[in-house]
Amino acid sequence: MGDMDAPGTVDVVVVGGGVIGLSAAWRAAAGGASVAVLDPDPGRGSTWAAAGMLAPVGEAHFGEEPLARLNVAAARAWPAFAGRLEEASGVTVGYRAGGTVVAAHDTSDRAAVDDLLAFQLDLGLEARRLSAAECRGLEPLLAPGIRGGAEFAGDHQVDNRQVVEALLEACRRSGVTVLRDEVVAVTTRSRRVTGVTRGGGDPVGARWVVVAAGARSGELGGLPPDAVPPVRPVKGLTLRLRAPGDGPALVRTVRGLVRGRSCYLVPRADGTLVVGATMEERGFDLAPQAGPVHDLLDDARAVVPAVDEYTVEELSTGSRPGTPDNAPLVGPIGPEGLVVATGHFRNGILLAPVTAEAVATVVAGGAVPDELAPFGPGRFAARGVPVPT
Amino acid sequence: MGDMDAPGTVDVVVVGGGVIGLSAAWRAAAGGASVAVLDPDPGRGSTWAAAGMLAPVGEAHFGEEPLARLNVAAARAWPAFAGRLEEASGVTVGYRAGGTVVAAHDTSDRAAVDDLLAFQLDLGLEARRLSAAECRGLEPLLAPGIRGGAEFAGDHQVDNRQVVEALLEACRRSGVTVLRDEVVAVTTRSRRVTGVTRGGGDPVGARWVVVAAGARSGELGGLPPDAVPPVRPVKGLTLRLRAPGDGPALVRTVRGLVRGRSCYLVPRADGTLVVGATMEERGFDLAPQAGPVHDLLDDARAVVPAVDEYTVEELSTGSRPGTPDNAPLVGPIGPEGLVVATGHFRNGILLAPVTAEAVATVVAGGAVPDELAPFGPGRFAARGVPVPT
Repeated sequence: MGDMDAPGTVDVVVVGGGVIGLSAAWRAAAGGASVAVLDPDPGRGSTWAAAGMLAPVGEAHFGEEPLARLNVAAARAWPAFAGRLEEASGVTVGYRAGGTVVAAHDTSDRAAVDDLLAFQLDLGLEARRLSAAECRGLEPLLAPGIRGGAEFAGDHQVDNRQVVEALLEACRRSGVTVLRDEVVAVTTRSRRVTGVTRGGGDPVGARWVVVAAGARSGELGGLPPDAVPPVRPVKGLTLRLRAPGDGPALVRTVRGLVRGRSCYLVPRADGTLVVGATMEERGFDLAPQAGPVHDLLDDARAVVPAVDEYTVEELSTGSRPGTPDNAPLVGPIGPEGLVVATGHFRNGILLAPVTAEAVATVVAGGAVPDELAPFGPGRFAARGVPVPT
Repeated sequence: MGDMDAPGTVDVVVVGGGVIGLSAAWRAAAGGASVAVLDPDPGRGSTWAAAGMLAPVGEAHFGEEPLARLNVAAARAWPAFAGRLEEASGVTVGYRAGGTVVAAHDTSDRAAVDDLLAFQLDLGLEARRLSAAECRGLEPLLAPGIRGGAEFAGDHQVDNRQVVEALLEACRRSGVTVLRDEVVAVTTRSRRVTGVTRGGGDPVGARWVVVAAGARSGELGGLPPDAVPPVRPVKGLTLRLRAPGDGPALVRTVRGLVRGRSCYLVPRADGTLVVGATMEERGFDLAPQAGPVHDLLDDARAVVPAVDEYTVEELSTGSRPGTPDNAPLVGPIGPEGLVVATGHFRNGILLAPVTAEAVATVVAGGAVPDELAPFGPGRFAARGVPVPT
C-alpha cells in the first residue's frame, strides 16, 4: 500500500500492531519519541481473539515461578495503565475487578484446584477455598454437580477489543503513525539498525526497531540468526456467545477444570460471554476445527449448563507466540537499536503494560526494568537450549 | 422497494421464493402462465439452511405411511426434475445418487435402525442390513465402535443452494418476475382473489395467488380464517464443515442414530460436509444456540470421528413450516384462485417437484394430482382437529 502519510524516518519503528506493539508505540511516543507502527491489520491478530482475562496464575504455571511473579506484577500495573489509556484515548476498556471463581468438575479436578490455590497463596495473592455450595452461592449458574472450587478475588478482566480501539486512538492522539503494511525486513548497517523495508511502500528509517510481531516475529527478514526470536504459533480458539435477554447471567469470570482440561467463561457488561481457549499446535492454520469447538462447548456447558441457551455469535482464532519456556522475550538483542517484545504466549494482554514501559525505557536510552530482566531474548542461546530454526 | 419492473397484473402471484415457491413459479410459467414471485430474500430461508437429502424415509415416519408414500413418489420424480431444471437454467444442481449408510451408535440405536429397515422394505424401497464391518467397508471413516446399520441405496441428494440458483435462473429465463419484496395481504373481491398488496410498491393483480411462504404462511393478511395455513416454525440448525485437503472423505450420506438422536452428514463434491439437523420449537428465533451446536457436533463425531479435523465454516438456521400432522398443505382453499403450497416441514427440497407440478396443474385449471390429494389444506377443519390461531 503506497501510504502518502508514511514518514521517511522516525525514532522508533514498531513491527506489529497487536496489544504489545500498540502499547509500546503509545508509551514510546508519550516519552517523546517519533513512532511508526506497521501492521497489515492492526489489533486483529491474537489480540482480537483473546478473552482479556487478567489472571496472573493459570493452570500451567507450576514450575514457572519467575513468570508467575512477572504476571503478578503485570496484573498490579493494569489498573493504572487502564486509567491512563482511557484518559489518553477517551475510550473505555472495560476494566472489571470482579475476581474469578474456579470450579472443579470432578474430584481429580478438585485436587488440581487445591494445588492452584496453594500456588496462588504462595505468591501472596488473595485466594480462598470454596465448597460447591459456596461456589454456587457466588455464581448460581454453576452446575449443581461441581465438586467445589476457589475464589481468586484479585483476577481482573478488560475487554481486549476495546483495548485495541483505545490503543489505536491513543496512538493517533500521540502522533504515532500507524501504517497498514507488512514489514519485510529489518535493515542494518555496521551492526546498527537503520530501519525497515516493507511490502507496499518506501522503507522507513529508524534508530530503533521493535519486533512485536507476535507469532510471526521469527519470520522477519534481515535479522542475524542469534537475534531471531524463537517463537512458534500456538493456536487458540475462543467462542463469543451472547446471554439470552432474560434470566440470570454470570457476574464473575468462571474458570472450569473439567476432566483435566481447563476452560474459562468471561462475562462482559454487554451480555457477551467469551469462552476459551484451546491450545493447538497447528502452525498458522487459523480455521476453527469442529473438534476444538465441540470440546470448548462440552467443557463450558459442564461447568455452566445455561450456556446451552446462549447464542453462538463468533468463533475466533489466533496464533499465540509460544516460546521454549512459555515466557516472553523482551529486550535488546543483536544489532544496536533492535528490541524484541514478543513471546507473550497466553499473557499478551496481561503483560502489555509492563512490556510497553520496558520498551519505552529502552528506546529512551534506559535499561530493561528488573522485573523483565530474566526474560531477555538471548536467554536460550546463553543457556545452550536449542533454538528452533 | 419501488420496483420499476413490477407487472401490474399477472396470471399467478407466488408468495414466497423458497424452493417450493420458485419451483411452482417456474413450472407454472413453463405451462404458459405469466408469473410473479414475491420474496424479500428469495431462496435464503429454510431452503438455504437445508442439507438437500432426498431421503423419503426418516426416523420419525412410523405411523405416517401416506406421507412416506408421497415422499417415495417425490424422490422418484427428482431425477427428471433435476434434468429439466439443469437444462432450463444451465446451472448444475449437484444431484448425486450415492445412497445412504445408516449407522447405529449403540444397541438401542441398532434396534431403531432395524425398525427403519423394515419400514423401508415395506414401502418397496431398496434397503439392506449391514454389520458394523460392512458399514465400515462402505465408509471407512465410520467410528470403530458403531453397532452396525443399513444401506438405503435409493437415497439421493442435491445441493440445495445450487437448486436455488438454478431455479432463480430458470424463472428468469421463463419470464417469471421475481420481486424482492414482502407481501402484506391477499386481496379478494366477491370470494375471488384479485392479487396481493406488498410492502414496497404497488399491488400486483392476479387470478391466482399461491401461498408458499413456508413457516410465515400463517401470517399473511387478507385470508379468511378457514384458509389460514396451520403452520408453525420448527427451527433447524445445520453446520457446514469442510474436509481437510488431504486424507479420506465420506462418499455417501451418513445418517447416524446416536443415543436415540438422529443426525446426518451429507458430503458434497466440493469438500463441504453438511451436518444436520436439530428440531427446535423456538418460534422464529434464528440465532444458533450453543446447546444445539454442541449436540450436533457431539453426535456427528460419535459417528464419524474424523469430523473433529473438519473446519467449521457456517452455522445455518431456518424455520421449517411444521403442520399438525407433519405433512404438507397443498391445494386450493377459501376464495377462488387461492392455492396453498406450504407445510413441507423437513421435506421441502424432496417435495418441491411434485408440489410444483400440482400447483402448475391447478393454476392451469386442473385438479390436484392423486398423490397429493390427501394433503389438502382444509383437512384439519374437515376432521375437527383444532387449528392453531
